[in-house]
Formats: sequence, structure tokens, C-alpha cells
Amino acid sequence: MNTDDPGLTQLRDVLRKFAADRDWDQFHSPKNLASALSVEAAELLERFQWLTEDESRNLPPAALAKVREEMADVLNYLVRLADKLDVNLLEAARDKIVVNAQKYPADQVRGSARKYSES
Amino acid sequence: MNTDDPGLTQLRDVLRKFAADRDWDQFHSPKNLASALSVEAAELLERFQWLTEDESRNLPPAALAKVREEMADVLNYLVRLADKLDVNLLEAARDKIVVNAQKYPADQVRGSARKYSES
Amino acid sequence: MNTDDPGLTQLRDVLRKFAADRDWDQFHSPKNLASALSVEAAELLERFQWLTEDESRNLPPAALAKVREEMADVLNYLVRLADKLDVNLLEAARDKIVVNAQKYPADQVRGSARKYSES
Amino acid sequence: MNTDDPGLTQLRDVLRKFAADRDWDQFHSPKNLASALSVEAAELLERFQWLTEDESRNLPPAALAKVREEMADVLNYLVRLADKLDVNLLEAARDKIVVNAQKYPADQVRGSARKYSES
Repeated sequence: MNTDDPGLTQLRDVLRKFAADRDWDQFHSPKNLASALSVEAAELLERFQWLTEDESRNLPPAALAKVREEMADVLNYLVRLADKLDVNLLEAARDKIVVNAQKYPADQVRGSARKYSES
Repeated sequence: MNTDDPGLTQLRDVLRKFAADRDWDQFHSPKNLASALSVEAAELLERFQWLTEDESRNLPPAALAKVREEMADVLNYLVRLADKLDVNLLEAARDKIVVNAQKYPADQVRGSARKYSES
Repeated sequence: MNTDDPGLTQLRDVLRKFAADRDWDQFHSPKNLASALSVEAAELLERFQWLTEDESRNLPPAALAKVREEMADVLNYLVRLADKLDVNLLEAARDKIVVNAQKYPADQVRGSARKYSES
Repeated sequence: MNTDDPGLTQLRDVLRKFAADRDWDQFHSPKNLASALSVEAAELLERFQWLTEDESRNLPPAALAKVREEMADVLNYLVRLADKLDVNLLEAARDKIVVNAQKYPADQVRGSARKYSES
């Protein structure tokens, strides 16, 4: 991991110990971690599935607390997977933004974004 | 965001500018961002879907590069969603680990983890 | 499979041949098929992620054609998984509706559905 | 729907009544239904996430019962979405198999399937 994210590095270490203490590394193949991450991302989506976009911008405290928990689960599995694959998450994220900037030049997509899929 | 993650804070700021430059905030309701995050998590899973667990531990460089890109997409949408909802990701992650530690006490789940669903 | 779904039974048989012709059964463990199904469900969701609910009710022909393709992919993997696990899909679906009817009695959830998560 | 799937047509009708009785059509925009389907597909995947491929081929009865329930949820949302978009699921599935057969000719992908991503 990179020195500009002591928080992520510490999180990685806490997660290593958590799994080791429970003898769970045997289940933490990248394939399984990617599955678990995907499941958590869906649990996050589930908090919004029947809400309108406006309602999603104005979550009551209890609903926001649940969303926050699911976001935490996603981050934890992402950090765990990054650890197993030796991926520097922040570096990867920055690199991808550069790729996206070339894929979606601001002067071309601005204002007519509705025609462009962001993925 | 918290002061122990200058990297995540900087990523948040880059993503704010990226969306603003393209007039894309209109699409970035939390509901839509949660959908996009879920879609990227599935694109990450897709890299592993036909691999065995062992193959997933030994990805060739080209495959790893693709996995790294999808992980970046997941982090970027997670940071974007956290920004819109004013969620401190690292704090949320740490809080969730505390909850998980109580839910899965090491002395109870160790060694017989196969019987316990981790979620 | 059941005699009230000759279409699903025929689809199952076509999919069996498709996989056998390509020697793909080796990859079709239930675990892998569930992953693939999840990935296709996300590709379906992707068609809607930046649309408003109203736009999703009024898809232009080209967009609808893509949605139709992704729905086909989901059904194909679902039928394939049902085949491998010997699950009667229609029977399972009917049984689940009975469970849901007890979980969400019409007289209790009608009109105030917004407070109830449907899952 | 098509006449070769009386089962699916009947399922569609039961689901129409179920939603109407609860005044839930207001939530059943295609965008929301696609989200719900994706969430159920992930709940299905969750049943397998820590299992090996072999374990997934030999599910104990209780585990299989849960998998069957999640598959039912996926089918129910798929049929509901097909209804809202007037998509003939079986026809779409058959059309997609034809497309896939051209994309993955048996003589080219047989035996070396591991190099080919099926999506």
C-alpha cells in the first residue's frame, strides 16, 4: 500500500488479524472475496431499490446508518482483496480516472451526458 | 472525511471535479451511484467467474491488470457515494469490524468456520 | 422440470447441448453459474443505472433490445443452474409467492408500502 | 407472452395480482425491478460465496432449499420486469443462444474453453 493512505494500510492490517484469528484465510481466495464484495454491493443497493432518486438524497438517520454499514462492508472486502492481490487501491483509482478522462473528454460529453454511459 | 486518509480525501476532490467538469452531478443521486457501484462490483466478479479458486490466486499479469481496473471503479464509486452522503469511509469500516468481532467471536468460529456464513 | 413449462424444458435441453458441444460443463459448477447469473443481472441493471424511473418506462427501441438481451442471459443462466441443481423453477417461484403473501399481507402493507422493504 | 409457456404466463398473472393487491405498481418501474432482480441474484450468490465448487455440487438439503428460494426470487422479478417491458422471455432466451452460438463456435472454443470468457 501507499504512504498517502495510512488509514487504508491500518485497515488492511486490522482485517489481516481478524481473518487470521478466525482461521478464515482458507476462504479468502480472490475469487471468493470478489463474490463477497459483489454481495455486499448488492446489500448496499437494496437500501435504495424502492426509493426515488430524491428520497435517496434525503435519507432519514436510521436508513443512512444502514447504508453506512453496507458501504463499510464493501470497503472492507475491497481492501482485503487488494491485500491478497497486492493492489495499491489509491494508485489504481487515480490511474482509472486518467483513463476515464480520455474516454469521456469534458468538452465532448458535457451537457449531453444523458447520451453517454459512464461505464 | 478524516485526516488519516489524505489519499481518500484527494480522490474525493478529483472525482468532484471530474463530475462537475462534465455536468454529471445530475446523474449522481445516491440511488444511481449505488447501482453503478454494484455494476462495477459485478464486472470485477466477472474476471473470476470461470476461474478456480487456485487460478484466482495466480492471475497472469494481463488478467491482474483488468482486475485492478475494476477494483478502481468500485473504489471511485464508493468514494463518490460517501461524498454525497457525507460518510467517513474509514470510520465506518472500523466501526463495522467491531460489530463483526462481536458477531463472530474468534474463539467460537475458529477452525469450524466452514459452518459459518461470514455475512 | 414440470409439464406446465414445455418452453423452459426445451430451453434447458438447448442449453445442455450448447455446453456439451463446447465441453463447458467443467466450468458449470453451481458456484460458477450463480456468479455468472449475478454478473448478467448487473449487466441488465447497467442499462438503467443513469436513467430516471420515467425514462426506464419509455425505453427507445435500441435500448429495449439491449435490455431484452440481458434478460435472456439471466434466464439462460437461471435455467442452467436449475438444471444442475434439479430445481423446478416454476414450482419454486409459486412456493415463494405463497411465502411472500404471508410475509406481506395485502391488508397490512397496502397503501403504505413505502415503509416496507419488499425483501 | 408465448403459448409455449403457460407456466410463465400464469406466473406473470399471479405476480400482477400480488402487486395490484398491495398497490405496489408505483414502485415497479423497470429501473427499480432491475435493481431488485440484481439484489436477489446476489442473495443467490451469497449461498455459494464461501463454498468450493465441489461443495456447491453437493448441497445439503437445507442449503439447497435456500438456494431454491433465491432462484424463485430471481425468476419472479425477471417475469415482472418482462411483463412491464412486454418482453417474451423464452423468445429472447432462444434468440440469445443463437447469438452466442455465432460468438462461440463449438469447433473453435471446444477443449480450450479456459482461455475464453463466456461473456
